[in-house]
Amino acid sequence: MGKLILVRHGKSLWNVKNVFTGWTDVDLAPEGIEEAKKAGKLIKSNLIDVDICFSSYLKRAIRTAWIILETADMMHVDSHYSWKLNERHYGDWQGKNKDEVLREIGEERFLSVRRGYDTPPPSLSEEDKRNPRFDSNYRLLNPSVLPLGESLKDTSKRVVNYFFEAIAPELAKGKTVLVSAHGNSLRALIEYLEHISSEDIAKVEVATGVPHLYEFDGKLNVIDNYQLE
Amino acid sequence: MGKLILVRHGKSLWNVKNVFTGWTDVDLAPEGIEEAKKAGKLIKSNLIDVDICFSSYLKRAIRTAWIILETADMMHVDSHYSWKLNERHYGDWQGKNKDEVLREIGEERFLSVRRGYDTPPPSLSEEDKRNPRFDSNYRLLNPSVLPLGESLKDTSKRVVNYFFEAIAPELAKGKTVLVSAHGNSLRALIEYLEHISSEDIAKVEVATGVPHLYEFDGKLNVIDNYQLE
Repeated sequence: MGKLILVRHGKSLWNVKNVFTGWTDVDLAPEGIEEAKKAGKLIKSNLIDVDICFSSYLKRAIRTAWIILETADMMHVDSHYSWKLNERHYGDWQGKNKDEVLREIGEERFLSVRRGYDTPPPSLSEEDKRNPRFDSNYRLLNPSVLPLGESLKDTSKRVVNYFFEAIAPELAKGKTVLVSAHGNSLRALIEYLEHISSEDIAKVEVATGVPHLYEFDGKLNVIDNYQLE
Repeated sequence: MGKLILVRHGKSLWNVKNVFTGWTDVDLAPEGIEEAKKAGKLIKSNLIDVDICFSSYLKRAIRTAWIILETADMMHVDSHYSWKLNERHYGDWQGKNKDEVLREIGEERFLSVRRGYDTPPPSLSEEDKRNPRFDSNYRLLNPSVLPLGESLKDTSKRVVNYFFEAIAPELAKGKTVLVSAHGNSLRALIEYLEHISSEDIAKVEVATGVPHLYEFDGKLNVIDNYQLE
Protein backbone atom coordinates (compact mmCIF):
# COMPACT_ATOMS: atom_id res chain seq x y z
CA MET A 1 0.00 0.00 0.00
CA GLY A 2 1.05 3.54 -0.68
CA LYS A 3 1.25 6.55 1.61
CA LEU A 4 -1.14 9.49 1.79
CA ILE A 5 -0.02 13.00 2.67
CA LEU A 6 -2.67 15.61 3.46
CA VAL A 7 -1.86 19.32 3.49
CA ARG A 8 -4.25 22.16 4.26
CA HIS A 9 -3.48 25.33 2.30
CA GLY A 10 -2.07 28.22 4.25
CA LYS A 11 -3.58 31.64 4.88
CA SER A 12 -5.56 33.09 2.00
CA LEU A 13 -6.31 36.75 1.30
CA TRP A 14 -9.80 36.30 2.74
CA ASN A 15 -8.71 34.37 5.85
CA VAL A 16 -6.86 37.54 6.68
CA LYS A 17 -10.09 39.54 6.21
CA ASN A 18 -12.17 37.14 8.39
CA VAL A 19 -14.65 36.48 5.58
CA PHE A 20 -16.46 33.21 4.71
CA THR A 21 -14.67 31.94 1.61
CA GLY A 22 -16.04 28.51 0.65
CA TRP A 23 -15.89 28.17 -3.12
CA THR A 24 -14.82 31.78 -3.72
CA ASP A 25 -11.55 31.45 -5.66
CA VAL A 26 -9.29 33.56 -3.47
CA ASP A 27 -5.51 33.29 -3.74
CA LEU A 28 -2.96 32.66 -0.98
CA ALA A 29 -1.76 35.54 1.16
CA PRO A 30 2.05 36.05 1.31
CA GLU A 31 1.98 34.21 4.67
CA GLY A 32 0.22 31.26 2.99
CA ILE A 33 2.95 31.12 0.35
CA GLU A 34 5.56 30.85 3.12
CA GLU A 35 3.55 28.06 4.79
CA ALA A 36 3.50 26.10 1.52
CA LYS A 37 7.27 26.49 1.08
CA LYS A 38 7.77 25.15 4.59
CA ALA A 39 5.57 22.14 3.77
CA GLY A 40 7.64 21.47 0.65
CA LYS A 41 10.86 21.63 2.66
CA LEU A 42 9.44 19.10 5.15
CA ILE A 43 8.54 16.68 2.35
CA LYS A 44 12.03 17.05 0.93
CA SER A 45 13.87 16.75 4.25
CA ASN A 46 11.85 13.60 5.05
CA LEU A 47 13.08 12.15 1.72
CA ILE A 48 9.53 11.53 0.53
CA ASP A 49 9.10 10.99 -3.21
CA VAL A 50 5.59 12.02 -4.19
CA ASP A 51 4.21 9.99 -7.12
CA ILE A 52 0.92 11.76 -7.76
CA CYS A 53 -0.81 14.90 -6.54
CA PHE A 54 -4.49 15.74 -6.07
CA SER A 55 -5.99 19.11 -5.33
CA SER A 56 -9.29 20.97 -5.49
CA TYR A 57 -10.38 23.38 -8.24
CA LEU A 58 -9.55 26.35 -6.01
CA LYS A 59 -6.33 28.24 -6.63
CA ARG A 60 -5.33 28.60 -2.97
CA ALA A 61 -5.04 24.80 -2.77
CA ILE A 62 -3.55 24.41 -6.27
CA ARG A 63 -0.92 27.07 -5.59
CA THR A 64 -0.09 25.33 -2.30
CA ALA A 65 0.43 22.07 -4.24
CA TRP A 66 2.58 23.82 -6.89
CA ILE A 67 4.76 25.53 -4.30
CA ILE A 68 5.20 22.28 -2.35
CA LEU A 69 6.16 20.36 -5.51
CA GLU A 70 8.52 23.10 -6.67
CA THR A 71 10.20 23.42 -3.27
CA ALA A 72 10.61 19.63 -3.06
CA ASP A 73 12.08 19.46 -6.64
CA MET A 74 9.07 17.48 -7.90
CA MET A 75 7.42 19.80 -10.41
CA HIS A 76 6.98 16.86 -12.81
CA VAL A 77 4.56 14.93 -10.56
CA ASP A 78 1.27 14.23 -12.39
CA SER A 79 -1.48 16.38 -10.92
CA HIS A 80 -5.24 15.88 -10.89
CA TYR A 81 -7.79 18.43 -9.81
CA SER A 82 -11.39 17.92 -8.73
CA TRP A 83 -14.22 20.12 -7.47
CA LYS A 84 -14.95 17.25 -5.05
CA LEU A 85 -11.95 18.33 -2.98
CA ASN A 86 -13.18 21.94 -2.83
CA GLU A 87 -13.83 23.63 0.49
CA ARG A 88 -17.32 23.27 1.98
CA HIS A 89 -19.72 25.49 0.03
CA TYR A 90 -20.80 28.23 2.41
CA GLY A 91 -23.90 29.26 0.41
CA ASP A 92 -25.12 32.77 0.92
CA TRP A 93 -22.52 33.39 3.63
CA GLN A 94 -19.72 33.37 1.06
CA GLY A 95 -18.12 36.79 0.95
CA LYS A 96 -19.70 37.91 4.25
CA ASN A 97 -17.74 38.91 7.33
CA LYS A 98 -17.95 36.19 10.00
CA ASP A 99 -18.59 38.61 12.88
CA GLU A 100 -21.39 40.32 10.98
CA VAL A 101 -23.08 37.00 10.22
CA LEU A 102 -22.78 36.08 13.91
CA ARG A 103 -24.39 39.36 14.99
CA GLU A 104 -27.12 38.97 12.39
CA ILE A 105 -28.27 35.44 13.23
CA GLY A 106 -27.12 34.90 16.82
CA GLU A 107 -24.63 32.52 18.33
CA GLU A 108 -26.79 29.39 18.45
CA ARG A 109 -27.66 29.33 14.76
CA PHE A 110 -24.14 30.43 13.83
CA LEU A 111 -22.53 27.59 15.75
CA SER A 112 -25.00 24.99 14.52
CA VAL A 113 -23.95 25.78 10.94
CA ARG A 114 -20.24 26.20 11.65
CA ARG A 115 -19.73 23.33 14.04
CA GLY A 116 -22.81 21.14 13.62
CA TYR A 117 -22.64 18.20 11.22
CA ASP A 118 -25.75 18.44 9.13
CA THR A 119 -26.91 22.04 9.19
CA PRO A 120 -26.24 23.87 5.92
CA PRO A 121 -25.89 27.65 5.67
CA PRO A 122 -28.61 29.57 3.77
CA SER A 123 -28.44 28.42 0.12
CA LEU A 124 -27.55 30.57 -2.85
CA SER A 125 -30.48 31.10 -5.20
CA GLU A 126 -30.25 29.41 -8.62
CA GLU A 127 -29.78 32.82 -10.23
CA ASP A 128 -27.18 34.12 -7.77
CA LYS A 129 -24.08 35.11 -9.69
CA ARG A 130 -22.04 33.09 -7.16
CA ASN A 131 -23.80 29.88 -8.34
CA PRO A 132 -20.91 27.67 -9.56
CA ARG A 133 -22.78 26.92 -12.78
CA PHE A 134 -21.92 30.45 -13.94
CA ASP A 135 -18.20 29.79 -13.46
CA SER A 136 -16.53 28.45 -16.62
CA ASN A 137 -14.28 26.20 -14.50
CA TYR A 138 -17.33 24.06 -13.72
CA ARG A 139 -18.76 24.14 -17.25
CA LEU A 140 -18.36 20.41 -17.92
CA LEU A 141 -20.21 19.32 -14.77
CA ASN A 142 -23.87 18.52 -14.40
CA PRO A 143 -25.25 21.69 -12.75
CA SER A 144 -27.51 19.52 -10.59
CA VAL A 145 -24.49 18.08 -8.70
CA LEU A 146 -23.01 21.52 -7.94
CA PRO A 147 -23.82 22.68 -4.38
CA LEU A 148 -25.45 25.98 -3.47
CA GLY A 149 -24.63 25.60 0.25
CA GLU A 150 -23.43 22.53 2.16
CA SER A 151 -23.52 21.02 5.62
CA LEU A 152 -20.30 19.33 6.69
CA LYS A 153 -22.15 16.07 6.00
CA ASP A 154 -22.73 17.09 2.36
CA THR A 155 -19.05 17.98 1.96
CA SER A 156 -18.02 14.73 3.59
CA LYS A 157 -20.07 12.65 1.18
CA ARG A 158 -18.46 14.07 -1.98
CA VAL A 159 -14.94 14.04 -0.54
CA VAL A 160 -15.14 10.41 0.62
CA ASN A 161 -16.66 9.45 -2.74
CA TYR A 162 -13.70 11.07 -4.45
CA PHE A 163 -11.29 9.28 -2.14
CA PHE A 164 -12.64 5.93 -3.35
CA GLU A 165 -13.00 7.02 -6.99
CA ALA A 166 -9.57 8.53 -7.51
CA ILE A 167 -7.21 8.39 -4.52
CA ALA A 168 -7.64 4.87 -3.09
CA PRO A 169 -6.77 3.21 -6.45
CA GLU A 170 -3.42 5.04 -6.41
CA LEU A 171 -2.73 3.97 -2.82
CA ALA A 172 -3.57 0.39 -3.84
CA LYS A 173 -0.88 0.67 -6.53
CA GLY A 174 1.63 1.59 -3.82
CA LYS A 175 1.87 5.25 -4.79
CA THR A 176 2.77 8.09 -2.47
CA VAL A 177 -0.12 10.52 -2.87
CA LEU A 178 -0.15 14.22 -1.96
CA VAL A 179 -3.55 15.87 -1.38
CA SER A 180 -3.66 19.66 -1.07
CA ALA A 181 -7.07 20.85 0.07
CA HIS A 182 -9.12 22.80 2.62
CA GLY A 183 -10.09 22.79 6.30
CA ASN A 184 -13.46 21.13 5.79
CA SER A 185 -12.68 18.87 2.83
CA LEU A 186 -9.70 17.51 4.80
CA ARG A 187 -11.86 17.18 7.94
CA ALA A 188 -14.12 14.94 5.88
CA LEU A 189 -11.20 12.73 4.85
CA ILE A 190 -9.83 12.61 8.39
CA GLU A 191 -13.28 11.69 9.73
CA TYR A 192 -13.33 8.70 7.40
CA LEU A 193 -9.67 7.66 7.77
CA GLU A 194 -9.51 7.96 11.57
CA HIS A 195 -13.10 6.77 12.29
CA ILE A 196 -13.99 9.99 14.07
CA SER A 197 -17.66 10.44 14.97
CA SER A 198 -19.77 13.11 13.30
CA GLU A 199 -20.13 14.77 16.73
CA ASP A 200 -16.39 15.06 17.22
CA ILE A 201 -15.13 15.85 13.72
CA ALA A 202 -16.18 19.51 13.73
CA LYS A 203 -13.91 20.05 16.75
CA VAL A 204 -10.87 18.65 14.95
CA GLU A 205 -8.56 21.48 13.92
CA VAL A 206 -6.48 20.82 10.81
CA ALA A 207 -3.19 22.71 10.99
CA THR A 208 -2.40 24.82 7.90
CA GLY A 209 0.69 23.99 5.86
CA VAL A 210 1.72 20.95 7.91
CA PRO A 211 1.96 17.69 5.92
CA HIS A 212 0.19 14.85 7.74
CA LEU A 213 1.15 11.35 6.62
CA TYR A 214 -1.01 8.19 6.71
CA GLU A 215 0.23 4.61 6.35
CA PHE A 216 -2.15 1.75 5.53
CA ASP A 217 -2.49 -2.01 5.83
CA GLY A 218 -3.47 -4.18 2.88
CA LYS A 219 -7.16 -3.44 3.42
CA LEU A 220 -6.63 0.31 3.39
CA ASN A 221 -7.03 0.67 7.16
CA VAL A 222 -4.80 3.33 8.65
CA ILE A 223 -2.03 1.74 10.71
CA ASP A 224 -0.06 4.88 11.50
CA ASN A 225 -0.41 8.61 11.04
CA TYR A 226 1.74 11.55 12.04
CA GLN A 227 2.71 15.10 11.17
CA LEU A 228 5.98 15.52 9.31
CA GLU A 229 8.61 17.30 11.36
CA MET B 1 -11.64 15.13 -32.65
CA GLY B 2 -9.99 17.44 -30.19
CA LYS B 3 -7.52 20.25 -30.74
CA LEU B 4 -3.79 20.23 -30.06
CA ILE B 5 -1.88 23.32 -28.96
CA LEU B 6 1.92 23.21 -28.99
CA VAL B 7 4.01 25.78 -27.14
CA ARG B 8 7.79 25.97 -26.99
CA HIS B 9 9.09 27.32 -23.68
CA GLY B 10 10.60 30.78 -23.73
CA LYS B 11 14.18 31.83 -23.02
CA SER B 12 15.92 29.88 -20.27
CA LEU B 13 18.86 30.99 -18.13
CA TRP B 14 21.22 28.94 -20.32
CA ASN B 15 19.78 30.11 -23.66
CA VAL B 16 20.97 33.51 -22.53
CA LYS B 17 24.46 32.07 -21.86
CA ASN B 18 24.64 30.33 -25.30
CA VAL B 19 25.24 26.92 -23.71
CA PHE B 20 23.96 23.49 -24.84
CA THR B 21 21.19 22.65 -22.38
CA GLY B 22 19.50 19.39 -23.43
CA TRP B 23 18.32 17.58 -20.29
CA THR B 24 20.01 20.01 -17.89
CA ASP B 25 17.16 21.25 -15.70
CA VAL B 26 17.61 24.98 -16.14
CA ASP B 27 14.81 27.37 -15.22
CA LEU B 28 13.22 30.12 -17.36
CA ALA B 29 14.90 33.50 -17.63
CA PRO B 30 12.72 36.53 -16.72
CA GLU B 31 12.19 37.03 -20.47
CA GLY B 32 10.92 33.43 -20.74
CA ILE B 33 8.40 34.08 -17.98
CA GLU B 34 7.05 37.04 -19.94
CA GLU B 35 6.82 34.89 -23.09
CA ALA B 36 4.76 32.31 -21.17
CA LYS B 37 2.39 34.98 -19.83
CA LYS B 38 1.85 36.24 -23.36
CA ALA B 39 1.04 32.68 -24.51
CA GLY B 40 -1.50 32.35 -21.68
CA LYS B 41 -3.15 35.64 -22.67
CA LEU B 42 -3.43 34.43 -26.28
CA ILE B 43 -5.13 31.20 -25.18
CA LYS B 44 -7.54 33.19 -23.04
CA SER B 45 -8.28 35.86 -25.64
CA ASN B 46 -8.97 33.13 -28.22
CA LEU B 47 -11.55 31.67 -25.76
CA ILE B 48 -9.83 28.29 -25.77
CA ASP B 49 -10.72 25.98 -22.88
CA VAL B 50 -7.82 23.61 -22.32
CA ASP B 51 -8.94 20.19 -21.00
CA ILE B 52 -5.61 18.52 -20.32
CA CYS B 53 -1.96 19.55 -20.31
CA PHE B 54 1.22 17.62 -21.09
CA SER B 55 4.78 18.70 -20.51
CA SER B 56 8.29 17.29 -20.19
CA TYR B 57 10.12 16.56 -16.93
CA LEU B 58 12.13 19.75 -17.31
CA LYS B 59 11.16 22.76 -15.25
CA ARG B 60 11.53 25.36 -18.01
CA ALA B 61 8.68 23.61 -19.89
CA ILE B 62 6.66 22.85 -16.73
CA ARG B 63 6.90 26.45 -15.53
CA THR B 64 5.82 27.61 -18.99
CA ALA B 65 2.75 25.33 -18.71
CA TRP B 66 1.96 26.55 -15.18
CA ILE B 67 2.25 30.23 -16.15
CA ILE B 68 0.08 29.69 -19.24
CA LEU B 69 -2.60 27.89 -17.20
CA GLU B 70 -2.50 30.49 -14.45
CA THR B 71 -2.69 33.41 -16.88
CA ALA B 72 -5.60 31.76 -18.71
CA ASP B 73 -7.46 31.06 -15.39
CA MET B 74 -7.11 27.29 -15.84
CA MET B 75 -4.88 26.22 -12.97
CA HIS B 76 -7.15 23.22 -12.33
CA VAL B 77 -6.42 21.52 -15.68
CA ASP B 78 -5.08 17.97 -15.12
CA SER B 79 -1.39 17.86 -15.98
CA HIS B 80 0.80 14.96 -17.04
CA TYR B 81 4.56 15.01 -17.33
CA SER B 82 6.85 12.68 -19.25
CA TRP B 83 10.58 12.44 -19.93
CA LYS B 84 9.57 11.48 -23.49
CA LEU B 85 8.74 15.15 -24.14
CA ASN B 86 12.16 16.29 -22.87
CA GLU B 87 14.50 18.27 -25.08
CA ARG B 88 16.91 16.30 -27.27
CA HIS B 89 19.68 14.89 -25.06
CA TYR B 90 22.89 16.68 -26.07
CA GLY B 91 25.25 14.11 -24.51
CA ASP B 92 28.67 15.39 -23.59
CA TRP B 93 27.94 18.80 -25.11
CA GLN B 94 25.48 19.59 -22.31
CA GLY B 95 26.81 22.50 -20.30
CA LYS B 96 29.35 23.50 -22.96
CA ASN B 97 29.41 26.84 -24.74
CA LYS B 98 28.20 26.47 -28.33
CA ASP B 99 30.96 28.63 -29.83
CA GLU B 100 33.66 26.68 -27.98
CA VAL B 101 32.29 23.35 -29.23
CA LEU B 102 32.22 24.79 -32.75
CA ARG B 103 35.87 25.91 -32.51
CA GLU B 104 36.88 22.55 -31.04
CA ILE B 105 35.33 20.23 -33.62
CA GLY B 106 34.96 22.41 -36.72
CA GLU B 107 31.92 23.60 -38.61
CA GLU B 108 31.20 20.45 -40.61
CA ARG B 109 30.96 18.10 -37.65
CA PHE B 110 29.15 20.76 -35.60
CA LEU B 111 26.47 21.27 -38.23
CA SER B 112 26.04 17.55 -38.89
CA VAL B 113 25.09 17.07 -35.22
CA ARG B 114 23.04 20.25 -34.85
CA ARG B 115 21.20 20.18 -38.14
CA GLY B 116 21.62 16.61 -39.40
CA TYR B 117 18.91 14.06 -38.68
CA ASP B 118 20.73 11.02 -37.43
CA THR B 119 24.08 12.17 -36.06
CA PRO B 120 24.21 12.11 -32.24
CA PRO B 121 26.58 14.28 -30.20
CA PRO B 122 29.38 12.50 -28.25
CA SER B 123 27.67 10.32 -25.61
CA LEU B 124 27.96 10.74 -21.88
CA SER B 125 29.82 7.88 -20.22
CA GLU B 126 27.75 5.56 -18.00
CA GLU B 127 29.48 6.99 -14.94
CA ASP B 128 29.19 10.65 -15.94
CA LYS B 129 27.37 12.51 -13.19
CA ARG B 130 25.11 14.01 -15.86
CA ASN B 131 23.77 10.50 -16.69
CA PRO B 132 20.00 10.79 -16.05
CA ARG B 133 20.05 7.59 -14.00
CA PHE B 134 21.73 9.57 -11.19
CA ASP B 135 18.84 12.07 -11.14
CA SER B 136 16.09 11.08 -8.67
CA ASN B 137 13.44 12.44 -11.06
CA TYR B 138 14.15 9.48 -13.36
CA ARG B 139 14.42 6.88 -10.59
CA LEU B 140 11.38 4.86 -11.66
CA LEU B 141 12.55 4.42 -15.26
CA ASN B 142 14.51 1.58 -16.73
CA PRO B 143 18.03 3.07 -16.98
CA SER B 144 18.48 1.32 -20.32
CA VAL B 145 15.84 3.54 -21.97
CA LEU B 146 17.42 6.76 -20.72
CA PRO B 147 19.53 8.44 -23.42
CA LEU B 148 23.16 9.50 -23.03
CA GLY B 149 23.13 11.56 -26.23
CA GLU B 150 20.56 11.65 -29.03
CA SER B 151 20.30 12.37 -32.73
CA LEU B 152 17.15 14.24 -33.75
CA LYS B 153 15.97 10.86 -35.06
CA ASP B 154 16.28 9.32 -31.57
CA THR B 155 14.35 12.21 -30.05
CA SER B 156 11.72 11.95 -32.75
CA LYS B 157 11.11 8.27 -32.04
CA ARG B 158 10.36 8.70 -28.34
CA VAL B 159 8.27 11.85 -28.86
CA VAL B 160 6.09 10.30 -31.57
CA ASN B 161 5.70 7.15 -29.44
CA TYR B 162 4.49 9.34 -26.59
CA PHE B 163 2.08 11.13 -28.90
CA PHE B 164 0.37 7.82 -29.68
CA GLU B 165 0.59 6.47 -26.12
CA ALA B 166 -0.75 9.48 -24.25
CA ILE B 167 -1.81 12.44 -26.40
CA ALA B 168 -3.69 10.91 -29.34
CA PRO B 169 -6.18 9.08 -27.02
CA GLU B 170 -7.14 12.45 -25.51
CA LEU B 171 -7.58 14.02 -28.95
CA ALA B 172 -9.76 11.03 -29.90
CA LYS B 173 -11.98 11.85 -26.89
CA GLY B 174 -12.44 15.36 -28.27
CA LYS B 175 -10.22 17.06 -25.69
CA THR B 176 -8.32 20.29 -26.19
CA VAL B 177 -4.73 19.36 -25.34
CA LEU B 178 -1.91 21.75 -24.44
CA VAL B 179 1.67 20.50 -24.89
CA SER B 180 4.49 22.60 -23.43
CA ALA B 181 7.87 21.35 -24.58
CA HIS B 182 11.18 22.12 -26.31
CA GLY B 183 12.61 23.12 -29.69
CA ASN B 184 13.61 19.61 -30.72
CA SER B 185 10.85 17.59 -29.05
CA LEU B 186 8.30 19.87 -30.75
CA ARG B 187 10.19 19.61 -34.05
CA ALA B 188 9.70 15.86 -33.78
CA LEU B 189 5.95 16.26 -33.31
CA ILE B 190 5.70 18.80 -36.14
CA GLU B 191 7.66 16.47 -38.43
CA TYR B 192 5.09 13.77 -37.81
CA LEU B 193 1.96 15.97 -37.84
CA GLU B 194 2.88 17.98 -40.94
CA HIS B 195 4.61 15.15 -42.86
CA ILE B 196 7.86 17.07 -43.11
CA SER B 197 10.86 15.12 -44.45
CA SER B 198 13.81 14.30 -42.21
CA GLU B 199 15.95 16.50 -44.50
CA ASP B 200 13.74 19.53 -43.99
CA ILE B 201 12.70 19.24 -40.34
CA ALA B 202 16.00 20.47 -38.89
CA LYS B 203 15.50 23.75 -40.76
CA VAL B 204 12.06 24.32 -39.23
CA GLU B 205 12.28 27.00 -36.55
CA VAL B 206 9.75 26.68 -33.73
CA ALA B 207 8.90 30.13 -32.33
CA THR B 208 9.19 30.39 -28.51
CA GLY B 209 6.08 31.17 -26.48
CA VAL B 210 3.68 31.22 -29.43
CA PRO B 211 0.78 28.73 -29.17
CA HIS B 212 0.36 26.79 -32.42
CA LEU B 213 -3.00 25.07 -32.87
CA TYR B 214 -3.74 21.89 -34.87
CA GLU B 215 -7.19 20.68 -35.94
CA PHE B 216 -7.79 17.08 -37.04
CA ASP B 217 -10.15 14.96 -39.12
CA GLY B 218 -11.65 11.73 -37.77
CA LYS B 219 -8.52 9.78 -38.69
CA LEU B 220 -6.23 12.16 -36.82
CA ASN B 221 -4.92 13.78 -39.97
CA VAL B 222 -4.20 17.48 -39.58
CA ILE B 223 -6.78 19.54 -41.51
CA ASP B 224 -5.72 22.98 -40.33
CA ASN B 225 -2.93 24.53 -38.27
CA TYR B 226 -2.10 28.09 -37.33
CA GLN B 227 -0.44 30.27 -34.73
CA LEU B 228 -2.76 31.97 -32.25
CA GLU B 229 -2.84 35.73 -32.63
